Amino acid sequence: MNRLILKYIGRVLKAYSLLLLIPLIVSLVYKEKIYSFLIVAAITFILGLILNLIKTEKKYLYARDGFIIVTLSWFLISIIGAFPIMIETGVSYIDAFFEAASGFSTTGATVFTEPEALSKTILFWRDFMHFIGGMGVIAFVMAVIPLAKNDKSMHLLKAEMPGPSVSKLVPSLKKTLYYLYGIYFALTIIEFIALIIAKTPVFDSLLISMGTAGTGGFSPLSTSAATYTLSAKWIVTIFMFLFGVNFNIYFLILIKDFKSVFKSEELKVYIGLYLFTVFLLVINSLNTLGLGEAILNAFFNTSSFISSTGYSIGDVNIYPTVCRVWVLFIMIVSACAGSTCGGFKVARLVLIFKTIRRDIQKVIHPSSVRAITFESKKVDEEVLTSTKSFMFLYATIILVLLFIVGLDGLSLEVTINAVFTTFANVGLYFEIPNFGVFSDLSKIAMSLGMIIGRLEIYPVIAFIVTRFKNS
Amino acid sequence: MNRLILKYIGRVLKAYSLLLLIPLIVSLVYKEKIYSFLIVAAITFILGLILNLIKTEKKYLYARDGFIIVTLSWFLISIIGAFPIMIETGVSYIDAFFEAASGFSTTGATVFTEPEALSKTILFWRDFMHFIGGMGVIAFVMAVIPLAKNDKSMHLLKAEMPGPSVSKLVPSLKKTLYYLYGIYFALTIIEFIALIIAKTPVFDSLLISMGTAGTGGFSPLSTSAATYTLSAKWIVTIFMFLFGVNFNIYFLILIKDFKSVFKSEELKVYIGLYLFTVFLLVINSLNTLGLGEAILNAFFNTSSFISSTGYSIGDVNIYPTVCRVWVLFIMIVSACAGSTCGGFKVARLVLIFKTIRRDIQKVIHPSSVRAITFESKKVDEEVLTSTKSFMFLYATIILVLLFIVGLDGLSLEVTINAVFTTFANVGLYFEIPNFGVFSDLSKIAMSLGMIIGRLEIYPVIAFIVTRFKNS
Repeated sequence: MNRLILKYIGRVLKAYSLLLLIPLIVSLVYKEKIYSFLIVAAITFILGLILNLIKTEKKYLYARDGFIIVTLSWFLISIIGAFPIMIETGVSYIDAFFEAASGFSTTGATVFTEPEALSKTILFWRDFMHFIGGMGVIAFVMAVIPLAKNDKSMHLLKAEMPGPSVSKLVPSLKKTLYYLYGIYFALTIIEFIALIIAKTPVFDSLLISMGTAGTGGFSPLSTSAATYTLSAKWIVTIFMFLFGVNFNIYFLILIKDFKSVFKSEELKVYIGLYLFTVFLLVINSLNTLGLGEAILNAFFNTSSFISSTGYSIGDVNIYPTVCRVWVLFIMIVSACAGSTCGGFKVARLVLIFKTIRRDIQKVIHPSSVRAITFESKKVDEEVLTSTKSFMFLYATIILVLLFIVGLDGLSLEVTINAVFTTFANVGLYFEIPNFGVFSDLSKIAMSLGMIIGRLEIYPVIAFIVTRFKNS
Repeated sequence: MNRLILKYIGRVLKAYSLLLLIPLIVSLVYKEKIYSFLIVAAITFILGLILNLIKTEKKYLYARDGFIIVTLSWFLISIIGAFPIMIETGVSYIDAFFEAASGFSTTGATVFTEPEALSKTILFWRDFMHFIGGMGVIAFVMAVIPLAKNDKSMHLLKAEMPGPSVSKLVPSLKKTLYYLYGIYFALTIIEFIALIIAKTPVFDSLLISMGTAGTGGFSPLSTSAATYTLSAKWIVTIFMFLFGVNFNIYFLILIKDFKSVFKSEELKVYIGLYLFTVFLLVINSLNTLGLGEAILNAFFNTSSFISSTGYSIGDVNIYPTVCRVWVLFIMIVSACAGSTCGGFKVARLVLIFKTIRRDIQKVIHPSSVRAITFESKKVDEEVLTSTKSFMFLYATIILVLLFIVGLDGLSLEVTINAVFTTFANVGLYFEIPNFGVFSDLSKIAMSLGMIIGRLEIYPVIAFIVTRFKNS
């Protein structure tokens, strides 16, 4: 492995060691005397320091190196972040790693059936991992991928950010990140304040708003968001939806380019899928819940599933099979590219549908060779090809995960739900009692699945293949 | 619609009316006095005669026309073939149509829980539909698709017959069909004789060998093949496997070109998938069945699932989730192109895997642009593109079917199994009591799904889109 990569990993670890100190503040405020974070932070800092001391003559990173750094970092912060969880709660390391991977991948699937029994510090850490994960995704999508665009080898990822993007509109990468983190923090703080106004306890408001921002879904309560006030539920509903929107849209709103906002194809399809899902859930729960509850639950659950957040306000098992089939589809598609959501992304779905439509048109009018446009721009044929390959890889990984989790011998439905909800980083599911029912092998497979799903596969593959080549 | 198409449909109906007379022979032999076939045959013949009288100046068919003829024919023969079933058994027309679509699409999913209660004539008709369906597939794959190859508009179907094909090796289309029907009949007769030697009743031997040839799966017994002798079970196992092989392989064997046989990539992957499935089923049923039974059942069920036939010799619900996940995959992939099997086909799976591998290699070595070869020949980029589009269409149709069948509110597992087993033309399934549990809407959707799956989607789309354009 090239030394520059290790040097960068060192920097990531140094920054991470500072983040590990933040739970200590919570520990002090609530007088919980939890020191494991301090020890882990110290070790991480020293490790980072050593790596950062590595001398290298190389100065520039290629996109491929960027991917390796991203992949390694995500795994490392999960591996490290699991230790305080193991130490403070007494669960096995594999359970702790599952929880940390679920945290940083912003999934929200948990091994704890009773979060109320956990210390405030650990509760904070769980949602803080979501918040860091969400920030990481923004940095990755906005900073690493544009880098890839200038590198011919990385055409496979060009599909990632179709349409107007902040990076195209502001001159420097630093400034781009500055704007995007600004939007991220602003939305989080607005939700935080709104939740407090809606009579949610301050600590819960903090956790839920961080969990929503990262589209994670860890709750301090075993009932998730069910016991909060009606207005708090609607606030969470709205913000889960908002964090599913491409952040470029908010940037366009900030610069008052409303024309581009209204023209966004991805946004329209996202809203269309959202409303259809709400409609489907309402008509299929009217008899069970009554009109008012049916509407609230449909909006809340749709927001939760489509944005890959995973909060809940009641039993989702009330929805019949037709809803479950549709929700599995919605979970895998998820929301917009350039958001903190997991899944395949609406942008890719639209691109693939347009490709199919063109293929069918070719059967009828062989001479018609038309370019495909998306968000008013012509899309490279290479991007279309790789989007389809991406889909196939996605399906392959799902099949492998189904196979491994299937070894546990739980029902096919539980197996499918578990794989989809983890790989698409959702965390809410039908028919699964809790993630403690799975074997260690399944938990490890799903942990890897969460991180691979979060990083959208290709960086992880680039990493694996490069390692393979070098060894 | 152009008149030449109607004229050809007329010819198909005339030929079909003759086939409708064959069950009458059975009726005479067993003295069952069933005349509905005679009436339906007469009406079909008159209809065919009228259509065939249509005058047209056009003389040549385009590939697109060929597809429309194929699609219309398959629907028409199912629509017509359902009438004798309705009349003789008293089921609703929708149930009869499901049974006929299941027959001609060589699926083998049935609405009859007790076939023993049916007349010999109807029992014969069910498997004879499989046999006709299988012959139709051969004619379609071998005669219509090569036609498409010379027509630039039809590149979407070029992936159908990769590798050495009979049509490339013998000069005329007529001769090609002659050879292929020869192989089809020869294998069927060999199985028929072998089954009689293995002490299977003659009538059952006839039905089972026709059902195997078309990879259908209708049995005269509610216990499927469970009560036959051990050697009969092995014979069916072997022939189900054999009918999953690309018929070109048999042609190569006939002309003693063994080198090409051993070099066939598709054959190797087919055998590999087959053996892996056997292995998986054996180790997951050892405790339940004991070694001997586990091995017999594993081979039989693997043959039945992978070739999309659907016979059974015992309860498949003994297999745990990991097997079910794998079997769902195997059912959708199915066996070789150029066989009578349903599903996505091994050839396409191999092509897609090779494309993905190349895409990943591009991430690592941007400069490496390599052509993909299959069966020792370079594959057109257009074929690769359309194979991927094909896969996506496949997934889309499955999703739509899951949604419609999901409306019945049966469990997710039953819904998934029903859709996969019908769309992939298998007919064997886990956890479904019988197809009577589904609503009429679901039965119609699955009937269409069976035929669309059988015709490999594109002809059906070409038909729909052309109709749409003309109206």
